[in-house]
Amino acid sequence: MAIESDRILIAHGGGGSAMHELVREIFVPTFNNQFLEPLQDSAVIDELAEDRLAFTTDAYVVRPLFFPGGDIGRLAVSGTVNDLAMAGARPLYVSLSVIIEEGFPVEQLRTIAASIKDTADQARVKVVTGDTKVVEKGAADGIFITTSGIGIIETELEIASDRADDGDAVIVNGYLGDHGIAVMSKREGINFKSEVQSDVAPLSGLVQEILDADIDIHVLRDPTRGGAAAALNEIAESSEVGIRLHAAKIPVRPEVRSACDILGLDPLYVANEGKLIALCPLGQARKLLTLLRKHPLGKSAAIIGEVTSEWLGNVIMETEIGGTRIVEMPYGEQLPRIC
Amino acid sequence: MAIESDRILIAHGGGGSAMHELVREIFVPTFNNQFLEPLQDSAVIDELAEDRLAFTTDAYVVRPLFFPGGDIGRLAVSGTVNDLAMAGARPLYVSLSVIIEEGFPVEQLRTIAASIKDTADQARVKVVTGDTKVVEKGAADGIFITTSGIGIIETELEIASDRADDGDAVIVNGYLGDHGIAVMSKREGINFKSEVQSDVAPLSGLVQEILDADIDIHVLRDPTRGGAAAALNEIAESSEVGIRLHAAKIPVRPEVRSACDILGLDPLYVANEGKLIALCPLGQARKLLTLLRKHPLGKSAAIIGEVTSEWLGNVIMETEIGGTRIVEMPYGEQLPRIC
Repeated sequence: MAIESDRILIAHGGGGSAMHELVREIFVPTFNNQFLEPLQDSAVIDELAEDRLAFTTDAYVVRPLFFPGGDIGRLAVSGTVNDLAMAGARPLYVSLSVIIEEGFPVEQLRTIAASIKDTADQARVKVVTGDTKVVEKGAADGIFITTSGIGIIETELEIASDRADDGDAVIVNGYLGDHGIAVMSKREGINFKSEVQSDVAPLSGLVQEILDADIDIHVLRDPTRGGAAAALNEIAESSEVGIRLHAAKIPVRPEVRSACDILGLDPLYVANEGKLIALCPLGQARKLLTLLRKHPLGKSAAIIGEVTSEWLGNVIMETEIGGTRIVEMPYGEQLPRIC
Repeated sequence: MAIESDRILIAHGGGGSAMHELVREIFVPTFNNQFLEPLQDSAVIDELAEDRLAFTTDAYVVRPLFFPGGDIGRLAVSGTVNDLAMAGARPLYVSLSVIIEEGFPVEQLRTIAASIKDTADQARVKVVTGDTKVVEKGAADGIFITTSGIGIIETELEIASDRADDGDAVIVNGYLGDHGIAVMSKREGINFKSEVQSDVAPLSGLVQEILDADIDIHVLRDPTRGGAAAALNEIAESSEVGIRLHAAKIPVRPEVRSACDILGLDPLYVANEGKLIALCPLGQARKLLTLLRKHPLGKSAAIIGEVTSEWLGNVIMETEIGGTRIVEMPYGEQLPRIC
C-alpha cells in the first residue's frame, strides 16, 4: 500500500482511509513501538505507575473558532479528555500549546482561555503546562490549539477497538451529527429553522459512571472526524468482526437530518464531539442503556446495532425498507476543519 | 499590569517579557493551579506515581523547516526532551501532533518523520501517540509540530528556576547563539565564510550524567527563545538573586560573533537548542565543568558567571574593559519563528 499522492491532501487529515494510509505508511513503521502500534487515540503505558497511564494528543484547527454550542477551547479540552476516557482512563492533566496568528484579538484569546478553563473544570482536569507561539500574519489561520492529556486507568478492563465480540450490542449515547452540522451551518451562514447546537462536551463523568457500574465494556469510541461510520469501521476492522446497524434505530435530530439532506451529507459520516459508541455483551446492554439515559449526556441513548460473525471487517446497515447496504469507511472527512 | 496591545504581536510568542505578560495575565489566573503556577517549562506532578512525573508541551513553527545542523523534526523532539531534562527528569514518552498545509510534499513529511525517529532514539524516548490535521492551502505555513513529553524525576533534587543561591556558579555547556544564526543565515540566504550549524540536540544523556555525578544542581535551564539573556533573567527574577556574567568568559564562536555583528544581534539574546545553563555551588563547579567537557555535547563548557546578593532580580555583565552593564530581559525574540 502506497500513498497515492506525492502531496498532502485535505483528506489526509480527515480521519478516514486516506489518513490511516498516511499514518500506517509513514508514522507507524518509523516510530515502531508497542505503545503506538495499537493505533488507539490514547497510548496506554503500563510500565510507569501502579495504574496504567493513558497519554493522548490532538490538534484543533476548527473553523470558525466560535460555533453554536461551543468554541475551539471547549473542543480542545473535550476532544482530548474524551480520547482518554475512551481508553477507560480517568483524565487528570492537560497541556495546552497554542499557535497564534499575529494580529489575533487578545479579547478572543481571553474568551477561549475562559472556555478551556470551564470545560477543564467540568471534566475535572487541570491545565498544568503550556506553550505559546506566534507566527506572522497569513502564516496561520487565527489560532490552532494542541492539547495533550494524561489519565490513569483504574479499571481492570481492557477497553480497546480490537475487543469487539460476536453478539456485542452497539450503543450510542445520543443524537449523531450535531457537531458537524452546527459548525457547517455557522461556517456557511446557513440558517435552519431551529439552530443546531454542537454536542461538544467532556464525556469523562459519563464514562466513569459506566465503569463504576461494573459493565463488561469491550469497546469505547468517540465518533469524531469521519463520524460513526469511520469509528465503527475501525472497530470492525481491528476486531475482525462484522457490525450490523439498524437504520430505524439511529438517533438523528430531524433538523440535522434535513440539514444533511440539503448539504448532501449522511449523518453517519458527520463528526460528533460529545458522543461515544460503546460495545458490551448483549446481556448487559439494557443496564448500560438505562444508566446512560439517566445521565444528562445520555438521555437519547440507543442500541443501534450488534456485532455479528458475518460480514467480517465490515459495517452493514439494515435499511428501513428491509434492504442491506455496506457502510463504507470514508476516504476523508466530508467537512474539513471540523475539529 | 495589562497587555498593552489588543492584538497579538509577534513578540507575544518571543519568550521575553511580552510573552510573560500574556501568560501571566491570561493563562495563569485562568487556569490557576499548583502545577502550572511555578511557570517552569515542565509541570512536575507529585501525586501520581512513586517518582514525580514531569509533563511538558511545545509547538514548533521554525522557518525554514530544514536548516544547517537540523530540521523541525529534530527540533521538536530535542526541545521537548530538553524541557523535561531541565526539570531533572528522565524523558520517556513523546506525543506528536502535526498540522500540515494542504499540498505539503509527502517526501518532506517522510524526511521529518525519520528525523524525529533518529532524535527520539538518541534521546531514548518513544513516540507513543499522535494526531494529524490538514488545513487548506494558505491556512498554515507548511507544517507545524507540537510535541508533548512525559518523564520521571528519579533524583531527590529539587531543580527549578527559583533555587539559585548566593555564590552559585553559572555554567554553560558550550557556544551560545549557534541555532539562531544557523536558522537566520539559511532563512535570509546569507553566506558566511564557514557555515554555522545549529546546536539542536537532546540533552537528556548529558543531564543524566550530571545527576548521576551527585552534584548539588540548583537550576537547569535551556536558553532557547530569548537566548541566555531571557533564561538568566528568569532565574534572577524567580530566585530573587543577582547574576553577574563575565563577557570574556562567554563562549561564542567567532563566526557567530561576526554574523551577530552584521545582523545587529547580541549572541546572548540568540536562541540555542542544545545548550543548558546549570547553577550549582561554587565548590562543585570544577567537578561539573570537568564532567561536561568530557561529554561530546559539553566540550566547550565554561563558567560564565556567578550568583550574587547585589543587583537582586537582575543580570549584569562585566565587560572586557572593566565596565558593568545590565543585561535586560528581552521584550520579544529578535528572530521570529526560530523554534
